[in-house]
Amino acid sequence: MNETKTYIQNTADLVHQELDHMSSNWTNIPANLKEAMRYSLLAGGKRIRPVLAIATLESLGGDGKLALPFGCAIEMIHTYSLIHDDLPAMDDDDYRRGKLTNHKVYGEAMAILAGDGLLTEAFGLLAQGAEEAELSVDVALGIIREATRFAGARGMINGQVQDMENENRSITLDELEEVHRRKTGDLITFSVRVGALVAGASKETLDALTTFSYQLGLAFQIQDDILDVVGDQAIIGKPVGSDEHNKKATYPALLGIEESKNRLQTCIQSARDSIQGRADLDPTRLLELADYLLLRDR
Amino acid sequence: MNETKTYIQNTADLVHQELDHMSSNWTNIPANLKEAMRYSLLAGGKRIRPVLAIATLESLGGDGKLALPFGCAIEMIHTYSLIHDDLPAMDDDDYRRGKLTNHKVYGEAMAILAGDGLLTEAFGLLAQGAEEAELSVDVALGIIREATRFAGARGMINGQVQDMENENRSITLDELEEVHRRKTGDLITFSVRVGALVAGASKETLDALTTFSYQLGLAFQIQDDILDVVGDQAIIGKPVGSDEHNKKATYPALLGIEESKNRLQTCIQSARDSIQGRADLDPTRLLELADYLLLRDR
Repeated sequence: MNETKTYIQNTADLVHQELDHMSSNWTNIPANLKEAMRYSLLAGGKRIRPVLAIATLESLGGDGKLALPFGCAIEMIHTYSLIHDDLPAMDDDDYRRGKLTNHKVYGEAMAILAGDGLLTEAFGLLAQGAEEAELSVDVALGIIREATRFAGARGMINGQVQDMENENRSITLDELEEVHRRKTGDLITFSVRVGALVAGASKETLDALTTFSYQLGLAFQIQDDILDVVGDQAIIGKPVGSDEHNKKATYPALLGIEESKNRLQTCIQSARDSIQGRADLDPTRLLELADYLLLRDR
Repeated sequence: MNETKTYIQNTADLVHQELDHMSSNWTNIPANLKEAMRYSLLAGGKRIRPVLAIATLESLGGDGKLALPFGCAIEMIHTYSLIHDDLPAMDDDDYRRGKLTNHKVYGEAMAILAGDGLLTEAFGLLAQGAEEAELSVDVALGIIREATRFAGARGMINGQVQDMENENRSITLDELEEVHRRKTGDLITFSVRVGALVAGASKETLDALTTFSYQLGLAFQIQDDILDVVGDQAIIGKPVGSDEHNKKATYPALLGIEESKNRLQTCIQSARDSIQGRADLDPTRLLELADYLLLRDR
């Protein structure tokens, strides 16, 4: 586990440095817009998505560094979605990761534009990554189209809309899972797929990794929900019980704690099973990552 | 002039039909999100940007239809920028083109997400257009990167930020032109360049068309400002004198009417001069378009 922890930390540091370096070199951007974009982009976070993109590429025998621009682009998309979700018209949050949200520092108008700017910049960076990795035109344009599919109105934005519509009404387990699959699962899945696409993985391996990433995403979410009920505030970073207080639909609320834990184990097992026994994929690193990321309560 | 008018109308109709057709086939998008995205996308407008993309490609001997997906993508980017600009935190407008603005119909949260969705969809459509036109990987990725350059924090969003910062202070002519160049000029320029890139134009022709598009964009803006003072409300679609009423910095306010008219003629002449005498470019259509679009007061 220590080796895995070191790998995650080093890779996340590399992503952070690259984001810092790249964005500090942005020219011809108004100073306050650049500052607002960098404020949220460099506010921290676990950089799980870029780490998954890099680890997936390495698991398929590729050079992980080639996934770095793609991972940074995904982190920009993730960051823009957080900035817009925090706006008064959306979740109206004042703090994220212990820091004031973007609009609390720069105002609503600038926060909207900083989000728009990060989303637009992300696509240019995907194209730059494709150039640097010398991808074929099919693979390169396939990645752009997948970014639209997984981050757009069919993917992450779809999840955000469904989440808004589910507020203040009771929902089924299927509806809860559909929100998670779109709102967080799709971008995690794109992260894993982009590593596989850069590596030139076969269709079957791409499918296997897609299953892995969705099950992993769901497992994270169930784990989050369980920790909110039974966890340690110092570890989970928010007050225990805040989901129930906020009347959020959760796995424990719908299934109870024990059944939620069973479901978590099922997801983890599905994730593990899906990527084993494939000739072109060494699953070791991804299995270690999954285990490590899901053991946050220890 | 009648032939030019027919060309513009037919091409704009083609763009509108394509946007309608394509967006009606969007699947796996929540119904209200899809409705909000389509509401603004199909709300009308002159479709000048797609018409310029198509006409530029044709002027270079290419098949204009190949520019259609690119033109539609640019119209999605233009539409998203209008939705976000109209938000209460930005310009706080209730009407656009005689219809309620997006957030007045669907609420602020949905309007933000509809804009995000259109921007994200636009990049997938650029990739689709590159596939259909069978572009080389260099040209295809170059177009994606130019979209980021011209629509993002260095381009259109830059202009919006500068425009916000110029509110309630007196600005110089250089500052006024810089706002126009970024806020509206950059996306018009991208429209013309995308037609040229699909046609495989030489670097020199691309530069010439870039000069043409910037001068044309400035000419539009000066014309708009002049019409606001001396125009006919029935033609310009807003009350005469509304710029002065809104304390907007304009060419007539900074230069007076006569000098503004001189400047308009200089821009038109520069635009015309820039695209003549090139072996690979037949300037006829673009010159007709420029004349027609700038004769709106007649």
